[in-house]
Amino acid sequence: MSKTLTGIGASSGIAIAKAFLLETPDLSVEKSEPEDQAAEEKKFNDALASAKGELEKIKEKTLNDLGEEHAEIFSAHLLVLSDPEFVDAIRGKIKNENVNAGYAVKEISDMFVSMFENMDNEYMQERAADIRDVSKRVLAHVLGKKLVSLAEIDEEVVVIADDLTPSDTAQLNGEFVKGFATDIGGRTSHSAIMARSMEIPAVVGTKEVTASADFDMMMIVDGIEGTVIVDPTESEVAEYRKKQEEFASKQKEWAKLVNDPTESKDGHHVELAANIGTPNDMEGVISNGAEGVGLYRTEFLYMGRDELPTEEEQFEAYKKVVSDMDGKPVVIRTLDIGGDKELPYLDLPKEMNPFLGFRAVRLCLEKDDMFRTQLRALLRASAFGNLKIMFPMIATLEEFRQAKAMLTEEKDKLKADGTDVSDDIEVGIMVEIPSTAVMADTFAKEVDFFSIGTNDLIQYTMAADRMNEQVSYLYQPYNPAILRLIKMVIDAAHKEGKWAGMCGEMAGDEVAIPLLLGLGLDEFSMSATSVLPARSQIANLNKKEAEEAAQKALNMQTSDDVKAFVEETFPSEMI
Amino acid sequence: MSKTLTGIGASSGIAIAKAFLLETPDLSVEKSEPEDQAAEEKKFNDALASAKGELEKIKEKTLNDLGEEHAEIFSAHLLVLSDPEFVDAIRGKIKNENVNAGYAVKEISDMFVSMFENMDNEYMQERAADIRDVSKRVLAHVLGKKLVSLAEIDEEVVVIADDLTPSDTAQLNGEFVKGFATDIGGRTSHSAIMARSMEIPAVVGTKEVTASADFDMMMIVDGIEGTVIVDPTESEVAEYRKKQEEFASKQKEWAKLVNDPTESKDGHHVELAANIGTPNDMEGVISNGAEGVGLYRTEFLYMGRDELPTEEEQFEAYKKVVSDMDGKPVVIRTLDIGGDKELPYLDLPKEMNPFLGFRAVRLCLEKDDMFRTQLRALLRASAFGNLKIMFPMIATLEEFRQAKAMLTEEKDKLKADGTDVSDDIEVGIMVEIPSTAVMADTFAKEVDFFSIGTNDLIQYTMAADRMNEQVSYLYQPYNPAILRLIKMVIDAAHKEGKWAGMCGEMAGDEVAIPLLLGLGLDEFSMSATSVLPARSQIANLNKKEAEEAAQKALNMQTSDDVKAFVEETFPSEMI
Repeated sequence: MSKTLTGIGASSGIAIAKAFLLETPDLSVEKSEPEDQAAEEKKFNDALASAKGELEKIKEKTLNDLGEEHAEIFSAHLLVLSDPEFVDAIRGKIKNENVNAGYAVKEISDMFVSMFENMDNEYMQERAADIRDVSKRVLAHVLGKKLVSLAEIDEEVVVIADDLTPSDTAQLNGEFVKGFATDIGGRTSHSAIMARSMEIPAVVGTKEVTASADFDMMMIVDGIEGTVIVDPTESEVAEYRKKQEEFASKQKEWAKLVNDPTESKDGHHVELAANIGTPNDMEGVISNGAEGVGLYRTEFLYMGRDELPTEEEQFEAYKKVVSDMDGKPVVIRTLDIGGDKELPYLDLPKEMNPFLGFRAVRLCLEKDDMFRTQLRALLRASAFGNLKIMFPMIATLEEFRQAKAMLTEEKDKLKADGTDVSDDIEVGIMVEIPSTAVMADTFAKEVDFFSIGTNDLIQYTMAADRMNEQVSYLYQPYNPAILRLIKMVIDAAHKEGKWAGMCGEMAGDEVAIPLLLGLGLDEFSMSATSVLPARSQIANLNKKEAEEAAQKALNMQTSDDVKAFVEETFPSEMI
Repeated sequence: MSKTLTGIGASSGIAIAKAFLLETPDLSVEKSEPEDQAAEEKKFNDALASAKGELEKIKEKTLNDLGEEHAEIFSAHLLVLSDPEFVDAIRGKIKNENVNAGYAVKEISDMFVSMFENMDNEYMQERAADIRDVSKRVLAHVLGKKLVSLAEIDEEVVVIADDLTPSDTAQLNGEFVKGFATDIGGRTSHSAIMARSMEIPAVVGTKEVTASADFDMMMIVDGIEGTVIVDPTESEVAEYRKKQEEFASKQKEWAKLVNDPTESKDGHHVELAANIGTPNDMEGVISNGAEGVGLYRTEFLYMGRDELPTEEEQFEAYKKVVSDMDGKPVVIRTLDIGGDKELPYLDLPKEMNPFLGFRAVRLCLEKDDMFRTQLRALLRASAFGNLKIMFPMIATLEEFRQAKAMLTEEKDKLKADGTDVSDDIEVGIMVEIPSTAVMADTFAKEVDFFSIGTNDLIQYTMAADRMNEQVSYLYQPYNPAILRLIKMVIDAAHKEGKWAGMCGEMAGDEVAIPLLLGLGLDEFSMSATSVLPARSQIANLNKKEAEEAAQKALNMQTSDDVKAFVEETFPSEMI
């Protein structure tokens, strides 16, 4: 029977397809004394071979579909299965203790997992995760159970899961996965960001989609409204097919704007830029008509590897992005690691509250060598286009001054060596910590630009972890407190003749856009796929009206009040 | 050789005494096959008896010196040693496996510890900590090593430790412990707060005091300047004896102010109140001449027990405090649990960032029954004095409205039942979340008062965990961003004819006091021991001058700038 669930629309569009449930089968085993020991050993050897074969296939597929970075996780898995210490321990247990193969796999892998997990070292803990994953696969073969693997999907489906981990999304194939719906997560969760970058509709945080859906059941995922229909009626399917067509034709309309500037109805120009994670994202940036890169998250260069990237590797990556943009601005953010993003090889201490911890520029100012390597790579790349440098997590003026001083030192050294470095690199900061928003007038005298990072700014201003479901009601982009802080930042920038942008999720949010335009935001940086809809929306707005609306919103009482007011004030084609 | 260390002065005054190092001896054991099994069992039985005897003594001493609450931890320890499951398992291991007593104690206790630790339940995890503590004691006896115990100190010492845990401080005896110095911790750490409440000098965060000091070495702890001198020269001891006398005579001067109102030189009156944790703290409140209780932290009623306190228990506690204050205001904060304060029996999920999590009023609004019980106890106690109710961690107006509505409902029910309830209970909020400071103008229309909680407000505004050493440089009370937020709150209150207080550490900080007076703060609530020095300081300040200074500070660039400016502007007797 048809059932409608409400969640958070994480990526626009409508998907209609069969459900594919990402769940783990029951892999529990009992210890037994097998009658035929040789048969147990053979069972294990066969399972091992099948698991290896599967992993080889998945690895190759991932390499072809998604690239080397995504395929690496499976190389690590294969390595475990070729490790004699691991494999021989299992064989030894079957032989010496005369136990069944399943029990031996379980016991030995548990032992290794707990051994690695107990090492106080992120890298070893990741190895524990690999062993857990891979043992599950071997055990499934021993027990003759089918293990669900996203990489094996070969027909059109909607993926239904509690949540998707980075290792899950590495396997998602856009050809067959038409959309997904999860129980948990918000607009800034990993799965939501991934969905937007893959341009597939997604609804997250439905709370009960895994409990409601079943394999092969028909599903509708409406990423526009944030609803999921489980087992829809025929008339519902027909209705949503129509909506799907309307969305497709809207997309066609948007596509016409690809080479247009972004202008409000009354002629006010703003810049629409895109957020990227790797140079691979540049295709989407250009095809979606972004006027710049407003945020290049350099963390990805440092992640999924065993050591720091070299200056040369970084230089090549930055140079590619800057060159691809062909003179258009590219804002590159220096390493923002820590918090929810960890680098195993840095071996940082565990923190009680990582979001309030030793991260981003705080860490870079101390790990001076690592930071200067990145700064040199950035400076060298600056000769190839319009590169701007941005420091994340700046809380005090001293931090900015220190970072800037290091940059100047490296620049002077490079120039003394005769290296080509641009002479007009703008140097700005993320405004994502409340103190910096409140002190924006002071910062504006020393920085070249601001880019408001709303994901963190909201989390700190409301004192609510944006990854924590229990306080997700406090993630309120429209809260007048947030709007007031944004206004402080924009006004401070303009007073000193500087520009203010925004690179958090809020910049691409259709309810926020009229308010941000009204507050005078100069640059909006968002997922590449949001650029054209935003350009279309802004073309339908009057700056003057947006200003009046923003002024009213600043004096409202609650987030809900603001949202209702915007939706009432601006006709649907404008939001 | 004399060596001076710099740390953070956590509690005022000067201590000169021998060092007592709180450190754990080497308790490692090797497995062996004893020749005389019976002797090993006897060794264990003797160790068990000695440990029990020790614990009984410590428990009784703690009960007499510090009261029932502190003694409870040792009851729990004794319970472990009487548990046949635990004790017989050790005896069994000695007998059946023919191992040495030390090894048996170590193995069995490790097993129990890891069993309890792996249960996903805070209560069980606390049991694991008890077992770990108690096994250490038994093992020390088996090995013939001396276990350092704070409770056994019987001569005048300065305690030197890496850090002091709540269970350590429960054992501190003010008669002999003249002061302490730790490697880690800041002004708001547990050990710092404990030192102030015990009125003993303390310096925290010296980084290397445990490495520099040795048992019985002479030590000077200067809690005024935040320095520690290890192995001082004779002339240093003489110099500090003089300082000690000066401080004592200053204390005598302050004592004369106990019945005076708090007034600036030019006649501006403010209220100096005290922060308390339990009704036991009332003695200090009254003897230090506080004009009210500005913060009664009700968490302690809920902690160190196995179930929620009843309405009756709470009523008695609130009634005592309110009655003791005899008409003077008592601001009682509703339960602020979560974050760094956990309640095992509530069985809350582990959070990635507890400081940004499901805590305080967020939790109370959901755990409705628990919250209403507290509200009823508060309402009933209101009939016995001047009780004000304050909600912690309010981030949005909706949260305040919900909490207030529950209060009104309970009040109406009580009155319908004929219960006596005061008709003019002021209902206010903590301002400790940046959004609430920014929206203070809106809140001021609905609340009766604000109390600024600077410990949390600073941590969220700077996005820096105040317990995390690596970002402790960002805990900046004098940052102009913090001063601006404080100003917003005070101005908003006054505009609506309400009052604004402060109950964070900053309210008793001598550098902050001139600025807060200048910004117009109405009520300062602090450790009871800070009240008289603060009254003396304010009596030496002119409100007009403080206003001018505050105005200048608001427009400074950094925290250091502000601090230097205040120290320069106000002669030393004023700060």
